[in-house]
Amino acid sequence: MADNAEPEQTQEQDFLRDRESLTLPLLSSHRSIPNSTSQVAIVGSHVCPIESLDYEYVMAFIVFFASNLVLTLFASVITAVIAPAAAGSGIPEVKAYLNGVDAPGIFSLRTLAVKIVGSITAVSSSLLVGKAGPMVHTGACIASLLGQGGSKKYGLTWKWLRFFKNDRDRRDLVTCGAAAGIAASFRSPVGGVLFAFEEMASWWRSALLWRAFFATAVVAIVLRALIDVCRSGKCGLFGTGGLIMFDVYSANVSYHLADVPPVLLLGVIGGILGSIYNFLLDKVLRLYNLINEKGVVYRILLACSISIFTSCLLFGLPWLASCQPCPSDALEACPTIGRSGNFKKFQCPPGHYNDLASLIFNTNDDAIRNLFSKGTNSEFLYSSILIFFFTCYFLSIFSYGICAPAGLFVPVIVTGASYGRLMGMLFGSDSNLDHGLYAVLGAASFLGGSMRMTVSLCVIILELTNNLLMLPLIMLVLLISKTVADAFTGNIYDLIMKSKGFPYLEGHAEPFMRQLTVGDVVTGPLQMFRGIEKVGNIVHVLRSTRHNGFPVIDEPPLSEAPVLFGIILRVHLITLLKKKSFLSTPVPTGSGSEVFRQFSSGDFAKRGSGSDEKLEDLEFTDEELDMFIDLHPFTNASPFTVVETMSLAKALILFREVGLRHLLVIPKLSGRSPVVGILTRHDFMPEHILGLYPVLITGFMKSTRLPFLQLFMEPIVDDDQKRAHIVFSVLTHIFKQDMT
Amino acid sequence: MADNAEPEQTQEQDFLRDRESLTLPLLSSHRSIPNSTSQVAIVGSHVCPIESLDYEYVMAFIVFFASNLVLTLFASVITAVIAPAAAGSGIPEVKAYLNGVDAPGIFSLRTLAVKIVGSITAVSSSLLVGKAGPMVHTGACIASLLGQGGSKKYGLTWKWLRFFKNDRDRRDLVTCGAAAGIAASFRSPVGGVLFAFEEMASWWRSALLWRAFFATAVVAIVLRALIDVCRSGKCGLFGTGGLIMFDVYSANVSYHLADVPPVLLLGVIGGILGSIYNFLLDKVLRLYNLINEKGVVYRILLACSISIFTSCLLFGLPWLASCQPCPSDALEACPTIGRSGNFKKFQCPPGHYNDLASLIFNTNDDAIRNLFSKGTNSEFLYSSILIFFFTCYFLSIFSYGICAPAGLFVPVIVTGASYGRLMGMLFGSDSNLDHGLYAVLGAASFLGGSMRMTVSLCVIILELTNNLLMLPLIMLVLLISKTVADAFTGNIYDLIMKSKGFPYLEGHAEPFMRQLTVGDVVTGPLQMFRGIEKVGNIVHVLRSTRHNGFPVIDEPPLSEAPVLFGIILRVHLITLLKKKSFLSTPVPTGSGSEVFRQFSSGDFAKRGSGSDEKLEDLEFTDEELDMFIDLHPFTNASPFTVVETMSLAKALILFREVGLRHLLVIPKLSGRSPVVGILTRHDFMPEHILGLYPVLITGFMKSTRLPFLQLFMEPIVDDDQKRAHIVFSVLTHIFKQDMT
Repeated sequence: MADNAEPEQTQEQDFLRDRESLTLPLLSSHRSIPNSTSQVAIVGSHVCPIESLDYEYVMAFIVFFASNLVLTLFASVITAVIAPAAAGSGIPEVKAYLNGVDAPGIFSLRTLAVKIVGSITAVSSSLLVGKAGPMVHTGACIASLLGQGGSKKYGLTWKWLRFFKNDRDRRDLVTCGAAAGIAASFRSPVGGVLFAFEEMASWWRSALLWRAFFATAVVAIVLRALIDVCRSGKCGLFGTGGLIMFDVYSANVSYHLADVPPVLLLGVIGGILGSIYNFLLDKVLRLYNLINEKGVVYRILLACSISIFTSCLLFGLPWLASCQPCPSDALEACPTIGRSGNFKKFQCPPGHYNDLASLIFNTNDDAIRNLFSKGTNSEFLYSSILIFFFTCYFLSIFSYGICAPAGLFVPVIVTGASYGRLMGMLFGSDSNLDHGLYAVLGAASFLGGSMRMTVSLCVIILELTNNLLMLPLIMLVLLISKTVADAFTGNIYDLIMKSKGFPYLEGHAEPFMRQLTVGDVVTGPLQMFRGIEKVGNIVHVLRSTRHNGFPVIDEPPLSEAPVLFGIILRVHLITLLKKKSFLSTPVPTGSGSEVFRQFSSGDFAKRGSGSDEKLEDLEFTDEELDMFIDLHPFTNASPFTVVETMSLAKALILFREVGLRHLLVIPKLSGRSPVVGILTRHDFMPEHILGLYPVLITGFMKSTRLPFLQLFMEPIVDDDQKRAHIVFSVLTHIFKQDMT
Repeated sequence: MADNAEPEQTQEQDFLRDRESLTLPLLSSHRSIPNSTSQVAIVGSHVCPIESLDYEYVMAFIVFFASNLVLTLFASVITAVIAPAAAGSGIPEVKAYLNGVDAPGIFSLRTLAVKIVGSITAVSSSLLVGKAGPMVHTGACIASLLGQGGSKKYGLTWKWLRFFKNDRDRRDLVTCGAAAGIAASFRSPVGGVLFAFEEMASWWRSALLWRAFFATAVVAIVLRALIDVCRSGKCGLFGTGGLIMFDVYSANVSYHLADVPPVLLLGVIGGILGSIYNFLLDKVLRLYNLINEKGVVYRILLACSISIFTSCLLFGLPWLASCQPCPSDALEACPTIGRSGNFKKFQCPPGHYNDLASLIFNTNDDAIRNLFSKGTNSEFLYSSILIFFFTCYFLSIFSYGICAPAGLFVPVIVTGASYGRLMGMLFGSDSNLDHGLYAVLGAASFLGGSMRMTVSLCVIILELTNNLLMLPLIMLVLLISKTVADAFTGNIYDLIMKSKGFPYLEGHAEPFMRQLTVGDVVTGPLQMFRGIEKVGNIVHVLRSTRHNGFPVIDEPPLSEAPVLFGIILRVHLITLLKKKSFLSTPVPTGSGSEVFRQFSSGDFAKRGSGSDEKLEDLEFTDEELDMFIDLHPFTNASPFTVVETMSLAKALILFREVGLRHLLVIPKLSGRSPVVGILTRHDFMPEHILGLYPVLITGFMKSTRLPFLQLFMEPIVDDDQKRAHIVFSVLTHIFKQDMT
């Protein structure tokens, strides 16, 4: 009986399946580890056990190694060369976009294509990377492309999409796209909605909730219909698992108060492991960034070396495990016949199986299913689960940062499930819970410890496992692991966002911001335009600054005194300059019916990212530069303003809650210029403010204003710990009467 | 064999159970219809079939009738006399509170007590009212009492609660309390969180989501622990049903594409029925309001007459149904033995059952369980289900508005489930789905049609029935019924809120608001104070107006020109007046260390509703009235401001998103008063604005400003239909060049 002479066959099928997968990118469930060592050869349509010779193990390794390397090479080359923005999971980028940060190229058609193809090849190449993150990014890309009216560059445009051509609708669509991504990858429609709202969205409305629900309902219905269509079994691995991916339901799930203490311990350790995971991942990412910055070749080399390392490790580790005799009461064939299963034969004699190989030489989905499955307490050896846990923990940390689409969800679930089983084995007979349930709870605790979500993870786990009776335990584990982990490090996506340098605006103000006014952080010099401005001035200002919004001022004789009229955007100025309908004298054009005739609403609609008009493309004669433009009809006459003495913390709340890009600062006393400055996102970044006022870092409470009233009139600080700190400090402050 | 001689016994047990329920108000599952006709008498602890005489039916009716009447009378008397705010479901009140409307007395300790006791008695009195709404209100009450530091009036205060004594923390606590209410009533922790966020909350943060999750997790864990404790069966009806109330899980739930059309039809009709339900309920409520306004006696009389009507109807209807022979393959005893069950005997001969009595003479929970149960397609007659559906539909409409705590969730679920079964019977053999599944889908469609939630209803139904495989169908039904119903009437809670006159602030601006500036709606005269103000002036202004916030102005010589310093609240002014530490000359007190020593932070902390200091209680001598107060240290120096030319729609967004009570309007040109006016919630109410500008009602698009730029620069309008209207109107407008 032999088990390893078929790698070529399987490999060919791998490629066939990958090609199939391209047509069903959102729906198919990709394997991450090819079944190069399944226990039987598939010759034609027959399954045949065939004779093997020992040296063929080397052959199998070479094929395994080479195919992994080629797939990784392909994924990293297309990512590095065509769309570097497609690297990684994409969730941090989408989260930053929904906060108002538009990183270049993250939603282009190229990125979309590379994300889909690259994710399939990366997952197929045995790298320990997930598919959920890339699917979220894919969903967001598609949504964003719809939101910008298709892609003009590639001739894919639809006219009816023009109504969405504004930032707000595009943001809403991207939220729905992210929800659909999670819904598709875990077949978890409600979890997808919650994920989008708990982790991704910075703004939320009831109406958006129901649109996201609509999007994921469509995903669920299409998935369900495709499962119906795939009943014949011709859809590769897609049909397996049904609508519930890891159905561990059993009518007799029972647990009692005595089972709670081990579960608490599981949550605490899961939280610690999760926070260490985040810490290490952050460090590795910073190291990889140094390598990746050196150039495309270095990126590809890094990816390839991780692939080589992974291949060697995965092929070598099962040799460490000893062969187990097949249990007599096994529910499925032992050793396993076919691609997936609990009892992989690997190098064992007939009637035996290698438990570590059962976990490693399976798709990640199957490995999770094996770990979650009930009544298999004696299937796995302690040492095998321990090896598997450490392998997953560190391999996933080293695999994430390479230049290829790579998700974190599935690796974290695999790692967490093996951690849970390990704990179940350690508790042994002290606990009545099945080891499969420990695996589910372990996955929950590790997810909670690294991703820090609560409701959404809870629902995703329920929708993955179909076990509502476990709900109280899952909630408990998530709460504990999140709380424990929050004490050490941040959420994994926030850490990645920070390491990428996105100016993410938190929903709450830092305590020291309450000691400052907006006047303290506004920096000049400020560029302004008059209501009727000289073309030459506009061109000069646009060329010499990179600002995106400019206050428009009316001066005598247009008004009694200099007065703020509104704010005009750079893109709109460029559109005006491009039309060249200038005035020869500085006279108002009236209320604009003539002016408007030259423009269609499409001229001012939000462009797709990267497709803005460029000033450099425009040429002006000296004559034109001496002419004028009446900016009034094109100015936003209702800008949001704050008085310069406004508390910075309150201005931040206004900026963040309303979702602004520019906030005009007006003077308290008239007689000066009608605008003091413009605040943008960067002016609210804590790093920037602490750079301006280093004294705030140490002299946290050296207040110059009225902390007393601020305390109870509008407590803006979100974090309980910080609040307690402020309460304490302010009270100390007041009663020691050291106010200046 | 007799079946009706035991009413007194059962009645006595009812009272006992009610008394028990008082100790477990949040956790027990109350019955709404006493089992006065269960098929056997319980004598001592033995279950005995006893002989019956025909005239005893009259006796049974009298007991049924009288006990219902007494219970209703009790509930309506305590509600009408002690706490009128406890009437109804309470969800509209809590929703309005979370939007910023603090109706008097809704969260007092009295209301809480009456809500708990009244809800138990009302549900026990056979009225078709639910318990979920009152439990949400109960949860919110408890949260609010914690948020105001307990109840001073009844001596229940805790010092550590003082940190929550502000509006924002109280709002967050109430959100968590509402989530806990739903979590407890349906044993649905995730559904509770989602309900609070989808239906109740007007403001949302990721941090609040996880706190609400914490609250419902505690509910779930306590519930689960109590189920463990109640394993002995000594907890009345609480222990039955387990953690999943209506567990209809079956491993072989299967449906295919062919089953979708009937489900679509079910959703459409459910949506229409739901919108008609809302319409009728609104009309009945307005009618009842006319009666209730006439006085306490009228309220009690109305409640009693509804009780009498209900008793007669419920006792009379089962006589319309004919007796059915017991099925030979019934899964449970037939006729039913004990309180609950599928086969009530009522007036039937041995071996037969009355299917309508099985629905009516059961708790609502049991009726729902019967309707949801699988494999009972032949149990119910078409006519019985039809009668039951119409009874529930109209009885619940007439029962809701009485002066007693009454929820809507359970009646809607019962009605929807009977509607679903009816449809299942109508489709008959054209559909492969079980009638029990039709009942679940019917409940979903009717809930969607009347309550208009999506994600939360979906999760609540899943947590009630434990059937994740049905998820795509449930999502489909909810989407369709909500969409259909939205075309006709509003959400049921919004209708009730409107009929109660709460100034609920929508999250989006009405289109006509974009035609107005804030200057257009600000009304005078404006009351202001100087930074150092005469006591007499303050007392006079406070006595002559009912405003809650007053701008504080600095005038020469304190500043170069009149300038806005901030805003001061009425309650803080009263606190200052009460301390009577006045100045004899108008001189600034410096930066306040001395002033502060006289106050503790508790003096300015948010009071519990209704416990604000009253100006009428203060007396001043003429000498005191001539003295001064330096308001500077007590003024909020960072008020939110808008310029008078700001678009009203944008000001509304600012007001709503930041969650303000006062918004100061400042002039565009200096030289006038530094404040033009104050905007409050009422100034943004569409009814108020259309009252000021009736022309906007018809001349919707008679724009005087720049709709063109407004269109694409910040589309604020939320509703798609309205947006299409504006796009169309604005484009027509522009291209017809009829701009003024």
